[in-house]
Amino acid sequence: MSSLWNNRISISIFGESHGPAIGVVIDNLPSGEFIDVDELGRFMARRAPKKDGTTTSRSEKDLPQIMSGVLNDRTTGTPLCAFIQNTDTHSSDYSNISKLARPGHADYTGALRYKGFNDVRGGGHFSGRLTAPLCFAGAVCSQILERRGIYVGAHILTIHNIKDSAFDNVNVSREDILDVRYKEFPVINDKKGKLMFDDIQNARMGGESLGGIIECAAINVPAGIGSPIFDGLENSIAQLIFGIPAVKGLEFGAGFNVAKMVGSQNNDDFYVDERGHVKTKSNNHGGILGGISSGMPITMNVAIKPTPSIAKPQETVDYSNMTNEILNIKGRHDPCIVPRAVPCVESAVSIALLAHMIDYPNF
Amino acid sequence: MSSLWNNRISISIFGESHGPAIGVVIDNLPSGEFIDVDELGRFMARRAPKKDGTTTSRSEKDLPQIMSGVLNDRTTGTPLCAFIQNTDTHSSDYSNISKLARPGHADYTGALRYKGFNDVRGGGHFSGRLTAPLCFAGAVCSQILERRGIYVGAHILTIHNIKDSAFDNVNVSREDILDVRYKEFPVINDKKGKLMFDDIQNARMGGESLGGIIECAAINVPAGIGSPIFDGLENSIAQLIFGIPAVKGLEFGAGFNVAKMVGSQNNDDFYVDERGHVKTKSNNHGGILGGISSGMPITMNVAIKPTPSIAKPQETVDYSNMTNEILNIKGRHDPCIVPRAVPCVESAVSIALLAHMIDYPNF
Amino acid sequence: MSSLWNNRISISIFGESHGPAIGVVIDNLPSGEFIDVDELGRFMARRAPKKDGTTTSRSEKDLPQIMSGVLNDRTTGTPLCAFIQNTDTHSSDYSNISKLARPGHADYTGALRYKGFNDVRGGGHFSGRLTAPLCFAGAVCSQILERRGIYVGAHILTIHNIKDSAFDNVNVSREDILDVRYKEFPVINDKKGKLMFDDIQNARMGGESLGGIIECAAINVPAGIGSPIFDGLENSIAQLIFGIPAVKGLEFGAGFNVAKMVGSQNNDDFYVDERGHVKTKSNNHGGILGGISSGMPITMNVAIKPTPSIAKPQETVDYSNMTNEILNIKGRHDPCIVPRAVPCVESAVSIALLAHMIDYPNF
Amino acid sequence: MSSLWNNRISISIFGESHGPAIGVVIDNLPSGEFIDVDELGRFMARRAPKKDGTTTSRSEKDLPQIMSGVLNDRTTGTPLCAFIQNTDTHSSDYSNISKLARPGHADYTGALRYKGFNDVRGGGHFSGRLTAPLCFAGAVCSQILERRGIYVGAHILTIHNIKDSAFDNVNVSREDILDVRYKEFPVINDKKGKLMFDDIQNARMGGESLGGIIECAAINVPAGIGSPIFDGLENSIAQLIFGIPAVKGLEFGAGFNVAKMVGSQNNDDFYVDERGHVKTKSNNHGGILGGISSGMPITMNVAIKPTPSIAKPQETVDYSNMTNEILNIKGRHDPCIVPRAVPCVESAVSIALLAHMIDYPNF
Repeated sequence: MSSLWNNRISISIFGESHGPAIGVVIDNLPSGEFIDVDELGRFMARRAPKKDGTTTSRSEKDLPQIMSGVLNDRTTGTPLCAFIQNTDTHSSDYSNISKLARPGHADYTGALRYKGFNDVRGGGHFSGRLTAPLCFAGAVCSQILERRGIYVGAHILTIHNIKDSAFDNVNVSREDILDVRYKEFPVINDKKGKLMFDDIQNARMGGESLGGIIECAAINVPAGIGSPIFDGLENSIAQLIFGIPAVKGLEFGAGFNVAKMVGSQNNDDFYVDERGHVKTKSNNHGGILGGISSGMPITMNVAIKPTPSIAKPQETVDYSNMTNEILNIKGRHDPCIVPRAVPCVESAVSIALLAHMIDYPNF
Repeated sequence: MSSLWNNRISISIFGESHGPAIGVVIDNLPSGEFIDVDELGRFMARRAPKKDGTTTSRSEKDLPQIMSGVLNDRTTGTPLCAFIQNTDTHSSDYSNISKLARPGHADYTGALRYKGFNDVRGGGHFSGRLTAPLCFAGAVCSQILERRGIYVGAHILTIHNIKDSAFDNVNVSREDILDVRYKEFPVINDKKGKLMFDDIQNARMGGESLGGIIECAAINVPAGIGSPIFDGLENSIAQLIFGIPAVKGLEFGAGFNVAKMVGSQNNDDFYVDERGHVKTKSNNHGGILGGISSGMPITMNVAIKPTPSIAKPQETVDYSNMTNEILNIKGRHDPCIVPRAVPCVESAVSIALLAHMIDYPNF
Repeated sequence: MSSLWNNRISISIFGESHGPAIGVVIDNLPSGEFIDVDELGRFMARRAPKKDGTTTSRSEKDLPQIMSGVLNDRTTGTPLCAFIQNTDTHSSDYSNISKLARPGHADYTGALRYKGFNDVRGGGHFSGRLTAPLCFAGAVCSQILERRGIYVGAHILTIHNIKDSAFDNVNVSREDILDVRYKEFPVINDKKGKLMFDDIQNARMGGESLGGIIECAAINVPAGIGSPIFDGLENSIAQLIFGIPAVKGLEFGAGFNVAKMVGSQNNDDFYVDERGHVKTKSNNHGGILGGISSGMPITMNVAIKPTPSIAKPQETVDYSNMTNEILNIKGRHDPCIVPRAVPCVESAVSIALLAHMIDYPNF
Repeated sequence: MSSLWNNRISISIFGESHGPAIGVVIDNLPSGEFIDVDELGRFMARRAPKKDGTTTSRSEKDLPQIMSGVLNDRTTGTPLCAFIQNTDTHSSDYSNISKLARPGHADYTGALRYKGFNDVRGGGHFSGRLTAPLCFAGAVCSQILERRGIYVGAHILTIHNIKDSAFDNVNVSREDILDVRYKEFPVINDKKGKLMFDDIQNARMGGESLGGIIECAAINVPAGIGSPIFDGLENSIAQLIFGIPAVKGLEFGAGFNVAKMVGSQNNDDFYVDERGHVKTKSNNHGGILGGISSGMPITMNVAIKPTPSIAKPQETVDYSNMTNEILNIKGRHDPCIVPRAVPCVESAVSIALLAHMIDYPNF
């Protein structure tokens, strides 16, 4: 199913950018879990457009309305549906897009897939706006995990050629995660963040856009969660992460760097710590071995491409009559989607983790 | 399910390294497809250990026996089961592993996941040997795709610090794919291959192991295959690719390099070619936009870690009594799994592509 | 997943009887299908409460609002979400139910399943009201099927001890189906319908309720649709039909009567008709052999229990303090749910048929 | 998927009647469960043909070989594969069937579904023989359930016009279930069994076959297991039960009789028993309310049609050239499949119950 993820927990996302509403149905959540609606709002606000010129100037309140599955602030256990109304839609901005394939977008591929019947206004179901319901689901799952001590946190690792500090992949703490969570610009090193911010502003003024890498860590996941082969944590996280538009790469632990190491460098030696817990001295494995959590921080990097909608003229085709054309994109677009993608990455990871954890004893 | 991939086609993998047999059930294949058993054998032979010192010296015939789903060399349409008997098993080699967690392996995580009841001999269900049924399924899917002109090919892109030539990501051809497919050492540039080969031999003699990157391309996939959000080609390929043990990273098209580009660099301009087909001038998108094929080659890189089983002594824990120990691994192990992983990557991609294609008109 | 049916088409139902809204997400519908919204409304009206005393006096407009997946009256191919606001809710009517298990209801089992956190107002997610989104999904699927000549029709076969005429299981026609579809009281023989109607009124006045049997037929389903073992038409229809509250039995073709027949009676002889089509002379098999359609009408009967909410005092328990109590149910309830269940049965069958058909060539 | 049931536990069945082997892969079983192989054999023997003239004279040893997932008589938690070799196959008996549609069989529908490529020898994948792997899976699940006190038992309720005693649907006990389990002819009242046996022999000698009804009960299922709407116990049991060839009807509790009752008759009053447990005085609901177990015995009836293969000549078509023909079936066939279907029904129920139970706390 295009928009259904079904793995112990199911996430069914619906909506088009310029339709009446977008939303999500989450099935098989545990019952009785406290949902902090204010905290949901804060999580959603991290994905919402900023007023600072780094994002689209579209004003999306993105206030999710819970239609079912929560009563007296607790999950009922039956499906939780939330939806978000689309209000500030300027469809006329897209009038000339409907005939021209925007490079880097799914206009052409979507038209073929759906024989021209899909809603192309604002990207329709392919819009980055559909990450709002993903974030809603992620925020719900995140709250349930946090009450069990499990924290998922992400930050901008790079934008263009500028690199933030990385998490300590062995010792990343709850404080490390919370420190960066609610920053306006989610980086560890704010000086690097300022450079990134300026770089994005420059890109915007030059009619350009920028990409980057997001680093994400999940801590305190008990060892022994996940399964081998197709239902491991990596498989599930990957399936969800690639549901975020603009993601082009995903690596766990040392990731692509493993290719250059020898075995004794890459292997993470086990030891028993002073409290009798099994740990590894390094964490190239990123907290997952054989699809199953090792108890070490689960770490990954996610590559995000530059926003494809740029102000510069671009060569493309009119796929209705198969002619070569020049495209000038109007409308409001993010010069860099990376900051807003940070909570999306956390959401994908939180959903995957909760889905794998609810079956375990004493969850 | 740990070992079930269920997406239009289902792949159910079973078996342990030192049990009676391993195998796979493939459900929902189209009926009437010709299966060339000799060609299946040639595909499987690419994954089998070599006699040249780059792989384990375990002699695995790996001849799959088809138990159902094929009659008179054609698929019946009902489930195709194949299994491969385990014959050359030396369980005594593993006698001391069952108590010590091999770094980089799933011994410890598997023991927790299955409460100590999983079969640890030879890695059990976590063994790389379980990629044999994956390759069988991939070989079947690949034959069905090739009869429709779709070719999937992979090669070693890097080992350690040595890099092979890359496919031309815009123009990679059937010949490019077939040229490398049946080489003893699957690289494009054989001189680089010789350097890699020597590097692996050195690693082996030094009690070490090496990792690398595999590049894979799929050509002639019609534009319009796949779906947005969770059921795109990237999601499905990712879910399967991370089913190959030792994979730590996956990127499509320009992958992690997109993070450094500006939008106008990364966007692939569309044009109508002389035959009236929509193409892109570059292929940073890797043939997939919005989860859906664009008609351009589907390209990806896969990072493979160094084989965790190395001859050098390693620090680890005995997880039965929580003591710190020194591990000396005996047994036969690949000093570099990358060459044998090449057909595994092709298999994952072929399975994903066939699963997404069988629903389309005129398949 | 409690409320997710996932089989080529997925149906994800959400909502509680007295929450803000109920609804459904339908994924993987074919794109470009014309949706007649007025016709949807007529279909939904068949399930809505009547003013004639045979049903609850709750006034449910049940007007579904389409939130996504339809543009310019055609399916976009991306998920179709519809929801129905809950307006006329009298939660105070249920104030004493929340502590007492209503016999025949899921109050007690639901409380255990969800540890007391489920919404019990009006039955919550267990309410018969949740068949409204099922009917919406069924109405959509039905329209898509009808444009291909496939008609699904149901009628009340029995209420209590009164029996309507049955469809001709070999020759049931489009006219037979349409004749009964929009009747206020969906029976073939209106005289029997009048007797049933009076029987229901009597039951209501006596503080009682009645059950019955619904007969359903689907015609013009091409031969060859479905699959053996677990994914046959019977399996899928059954899984959906038992999603309608109050269903206690399901039989296909001759159903339970096969138990009394000998083989030569039960077997339906094949013949080639004058137009060269394969037919059977009788239709004890109900149009399905080995899970696959034979081209004959698909026929089934569905047993519906008497509405469990009755005015008569009943013995029950207070499951909060484990005492034996007497229950007096107030509120508005249907004395017989069978008439309103008729479009629900059609919906379940239409969803199953469309799900199995969309993969077939030339659909 | 035709032969895959995927619901917490997955069951993937493969094989054709006259191919090399049939079998099953069971995924997501809990680890560490003791498997009594001798008991598995006894369970399988109940499905195997008898020597007494009531079944086919085909000699099927039906000894399953476990290929994976069990070590030292305990489940490993990784997929359990078993297969059963086909040895006593007489394909020449079927030589004239491959062109003629046997009434009541899936020959014609299967040929359309698989475009003529399916294996028709002995019914191929549609053969009743494929219930052997179902029974294997059921026997495994049954052992796991019994160790938790849950017993599933079935018996022949009717053959033709002869009726056995029924279980006491409120008080059916472990002893009631075990008393009938290993009888040669599984009825409660052996006198009725003798009449049934003679009736079957007469049918066989007359070139006929007989159907019947199987009653099944599951006891000690804790209250609170299952889910509303599509994932209730009834939905899951139904989907599995209709995977047994020859099943034409299924009813839970009072089943079709509910149609004739008034609400106060059908409703089962709750009470608190002397041990403080919630019970119902009657059990018309069959132990399931809202898809969820009530703690009362889960009861159902299953209608089995007369074996379609009969010795009497039958009219049919040759679907290769569309001519009307007379069919004379040779080969060995059961004059009544009902006795052998008894463990199949138990298996379907055991699989469904275990799948729903493994997620629950303290399982």
